[in-house]
Amino acid sequence: MERIGFVGLGRMGRPMASNLVRKGFGLSVYDINPAAVRTLVEVGAKPANGVPGVVEGSDVIVTMLPSGIEVDAIANGPDGIFAHARSGQLVMDMSTIEPRTTDKLAAEAARRGLAFVDAPVGRLASHADRGESLFMVGGTEADFKRVLPLLQAMGTTIHHCGPAGSGIRTKLVNNLLAVASCQLNAEALALSQRLGLDLPKTLEVIHGTTATNGQLKLNWPGKVLAGDTAPGFSIDLAHKDLSLIIAAAQAETMALPMVAAAREAFTMARTAGHGGNDFSAIVDWFCSVSGAPKPRLREAD
Amino acid sequence: MERIGFVGLGRMGRPMASNLVRKGFGLSVYDINPAAVRTLVEVGAKPANGVPGVVEGSDVIVTMLPSGIEVDAIANGPDGIFAHARSGQLVMDMSTIEPRTTDKLAAEAARRGLAFVDAPVGRLASHADRGESLFMVGGTEADFKRVLPLLQAMGTTIHHCGPAGSGIRTKLVNNLLAVASCQLNAEALALSQRLGLDLPKTLEVIHGTTATNGQLKLNWPGKVLAGDTAPGFSIDLAHKDLSLIIAAAQAETMALPMVAAAREAFTMARTAGHGGNDFSAIVDWFCSVSGAPKPRLREAD
Amino acid sequence: MERIGFVGLGRMGRPMASNLVRKGFGLSVYDINPAAVRTLVEVGAKPANGVPGVVEGSDVIVTMLPSGIEVDAIANGPDGIFAHARSGQLVMDMSTIEPRTTDKLAAEAARRGLAFVDAPVGRLASHADRGESLFMVGGTEADFKRVLPLLQAMGTTIHHCGPAGSGIRTKLVNNLLAVASCQLNAEALALSQRLGLDLPKTLEVIHGTTATNGQLKLNWPGKVLAGDTAPGFSIDLAHKDLSLIIAAAQAETMALPMVAAAREAFTMARTAGHGGNDFSAIVDWFCSVSGAPKPRLREAD
Amino acid sequence: MERIGFVGLGRMGRPMASNLVRKGFGLSVYDINPAAVRTLVEVGAKPANGVPGVVEGSDVIVTMLPSGIEVDAIANGPDGIFAHARSGQLVMDMSTIEPRTTDKLAAEAARRGLAFVDAPVGRLASHADRGESLFMVGGTEADFKRVLPLLQAMGTTIHHCGPAGSGIRTKLVNNLLAVASCQLNAEALALSQRLGLDLPKTLEVIHGTTATNGQLKLNWPGKVLAGDTAPGFSIDLAHKDLSLIIAAAQAETMALPMVAAAREAFTMARTAGHGGNDFSAIVDWFCSVSGAPKPRLREAD
Repeated sequence: MERIGFVGLGRMGRPMASNLVRKGFGLSVYDINPAAVRTLVEVGAKPANGVPGVVEGSDVIVTMLPSGIEVDAIANGPDGIFAHARSGQLVMDMSTIEPRTTDKLAAEAARRGLAFVDAPVGRLASHADRGESLFMVGGTEADFKRVLPLLQAMGTTIHHCGPAGSGIRTKLVNNLLAVASCQLNAEALALSQRLGLDLPKTLEVIHGTTATNGQLKLNWPGKVLAGDTAPGFSIDLAHKDLSLIIAAAQAETMALPMVAAAREAFTMARTAGHGGNDFSAIVDWFCSVSGAPKPRLREAD
Repeated sequence: MERIGFVGLGRMGRPMASNLVRKGFGLSVYDINPAAVRTLVEVGAKPANGVPGVVEGSDVIVTMLPSGIEVDAIANGPDGIFAHARSGQLVMDMSTIEPRTTDKLAAEAARRGLAFVDAPVGRLASHADRGESLFMVGGTEADFKRVLPLLQAMGTTIHHCGPAGSGIRTKLVNNLLAVASCQLNAEALALSQRLGLDLPKTLEVIHGTTATNGQLKLNWPGKVLAGDTAPGFSIDLAHKDLSLIIAAAQAETMALPMVAAAREAFTMARTAGHGGNDFSAIVDWFCSVSGAPKPRLREAD
Repeated sequence: MERIGFVGLGRMGRPMASNLVRKGFGLSVYDINPAAVRTLVEVGAKPANGVPGVVEGSDVIVTMLPSGIEVDAIANGPDGIFAHARSGQLVMDMSTIEPRTTDKLAAEAARRGLAFVDAPVGRLASHADRGESLFMVGGTEADFKRVLPLLQAMGTTIHHCGPAGSGIRTKLVNNLLAVASCQLNAEALALSQRLGLDLPKTLEVIHGTTATNGQLKLNWPGKVLAGDTAPGFSIDLAHKDLSLIIAAAQAETMALPMVAAAREAFTMARTAGHGGNDFSAIVDWFCSVSGAPKPRLREAD
Repeated sequence: MERIGFVGLGRMGRPMASNLVRKGFGLSVYDINPAAVRTLVEVGAKPANGVPGVVEGSDVIVTMLPSGIEVDAIANGPDGIFAHARSGQLVMDMSTIEPRTTDKLAAEAARRGLAFVDAPVGRLASHADRGESLFMVGGTEADFKRVLPLLQAMGTTIHHCGPAGSGIRTKLVNNLLAVASCQLNAEALALSQRLGLDLPKTLEVIHGTTATNGQLKLNWPGKVLAGDTAPGFSIDLAHKDLSLIIAAAQAETMALPMVAAAREAFTMARTAGHGGNDFSAIVDWFCSVSGAPKPRLREAD
């Protein structure tokens, strides 16, 4: 069994490291906060003598840090991971950071004959506590297999997303939807409250339709993602609804900042000639102005 | 069985009226387009002599029109529904229009001793074809019961949302999420494409998390909607993720207009002191700046 | 001297009508508020018997009303202006309303052999008090000359913008800048306050540069509006500055909603390949996505 | 006369350094691009042996670099400015970078007994060519006086904005308006084009009103900045105009992303109870949600 070094024992790192110990992995740990180290030592981890100590005593070095600044410092600093690493070791960064920092880590690891995996964490801290996290992993097939036992000790859902750097990128795409949709929910529910609607009834309705983005899961694969942009419900009609929604909010003296931005986007799509297409095909318009290829699971016949 | 008058035989009205005929209702119909009338006559409806003819020959008058302008003209015009209606008749508007136009219709109907129901239609035209629409209904309990058989002939899911005017308001709240989330999906998938991710894998990840707004359904009822705003994942951390997402898009020279609006909203929430709360509690902040009461299914203990 | 009928004696209409009386015009006036009528009668106007009375006793009928709804009702209502007007009369609407309502008024006037002019009002109520308003006028050359003496009695700056409908359209374009720039100022000054800068010094700097949009007046005519898009300062560099500005605001936990929207726009322009052009050429990009021809005063040699 | 070291000879640095030489300053220069160094040597500068050479041979060290990354590397790197600097030297960064990077430089300079000034550059590259730049300077009174002769050799307008760090902050506030207003201009002119207005006439109107932000200069000092928020033109009326403008654009199928964001901001201000105040007082609302004190030049009586 590989020896694990773990750097970063915060709200997420602590339970993750604990679960590794609990499942039988030998762990040497480090954190700038001695109390965090003590907590891990109490459950059976070995305190390492700083980052160099972590690197010296492990085959796999895991980092779980607040931001790219800390990861960069701990990896590339004068007394950091790369300065002490030996060929054959594997570095796995599980922090949520800028993809380009991840790319730099991967390149530096490759230059030094080290393996590198990015494996940022999904779900909440409470899931991490119970060893039920989700991981989005970037790395070679071999490196993925090497870290799989560790990930299985910390979580229940593990996605191999592609080469190094694709784990963090997938997490950002995933969280774009997860986080931004909260403000969209907020705009919908605040409007509902201002319109005097009954909350449980409104939620019952919403939860029974594709309003809560069942569309991406249920409708899009058979429509735009299959190349079928014939209107079930057109961009023009969707735009009409957004206009009614904004007018209703305005009549209540209430702002809807995300919806307003969405309406401008639908308007641009109409100006560009997409108004007659299915409203899922807004993604084709947006990919075209984003310099991205159209997203297709398969082409329509 | 009540006699039905149906005004407005467009892409939605036509199959809805057809389903009423098919299920045995006596229908007199009108549309400015004679061809649309003929199609209904062929399946068994009776052509009415204009709006006055529709009103004269029916107990319940249904309108399904493109916008509030047409509804207002057909209802309030010199030769319109109200000019010819008799006490005891029921008017059911199924169009998607401004709530305040609906309110005016309801008030005018009440003034004249008529019943009024608003029942806008959910789902797609193809659902209407198969009699599988969803209806969000506003009206008294008695009026709701009166129109229920009609709605059951045209659809499979029927929500009584509250008094007159609450059907159309519920539809707007529902469609806010349904439509605006499409542009949000577009931003997520365009970013995924620009980041070079594998589309099927990305969708697999997204569909397995709460990214596609499972949060509103799965997480919010036990968190903010129950008055629990303790952070599972804080607004501060959600804002950090949005900032990483925007930075990653900027690094690809790619705009994310809705996400940018969302980030500004999260920033305002932080400025207002909500940063430490659970990210679902963004709705509490937004309700506070919207002059709306906090949305609660129940209060936390 | 032509007899003037004046409908609408609110905060703007009252001083405008007063100035007409003071400069010697015979005025018959009407407002739904009798107190407003009395005020005008005290300075020498004649109270008219409703809208029909105004129309009967005048050669030129002026409307100055709160919104297009009132203008439409007073012009097109059963007892409105058009119902009573005689060929040869001129209707001048000075309200700020939707251009398409203006177009309908102009078309209806033409159909009835009436002249029509739109002449919305610029500057503040205090300017109207002193007869120092600005007018943006749409109408034929002959009709413009006919109303010029009236306008000169009420204001000091009079622009003939083009045919009927171009007065109100010009006002909307003008006020887009005048009003939206206030929120932009607000974002700049709030940032300045959060950054701890000295307000008088900051304003001194801003007022000495083209920051307060001297660019449109001083730079654009010689750059993009003359077809010269070679970079004095490129869209790429302007975008870099916007990114620094947003980052500085974020570091202060402060939102900049308009600046964020501007940054997304600059980003889209870069994605579309305009990054190397002069930052004034952002208008060329935006016209291209708006389906509008490039704005040019003359072409570059 | 002080000896000057100059690092960074790009599109802006080259003419700035040339002007220093031309006005008689002794200059040792460095750039990673040898051709840029040669150009300066041809006009009389001395080529330095890297950054250490620049530091060794000068009393004042000027940096003019593309971004904070380069400034940080050149200042704090192992062979950078601070590593070689002597007490009494003055470092003047003229780059446009993040204010917090500037603060770090200032703190590090102070720690080492060096003077520090930030003096980012306003106006265009063509102004720099002619020695007509504008400088926004942060530093002590003594340090400002020390660098004044250099700045006078390179520019014509020099503002001492406050202590170290206030030069770059002032530039960001200034450029917020200068750059973001370009997209606002773009939205106004594209709308004008879509509405079929005559461009020279429209510009003539705009340039004669406060549309091009004469308000900040002409109106605000006597209104909100003096504590007078009584409405000359209210936030409610300004919001009404924005709504008409957006409706007019929507009628042309045309997006106005910044105006839409502005309208949402005005709506929030109305929700918060500011609707009856003068439209310049939008800044008071925005400062309140930004955690900033109200901007006041003096209080109203």
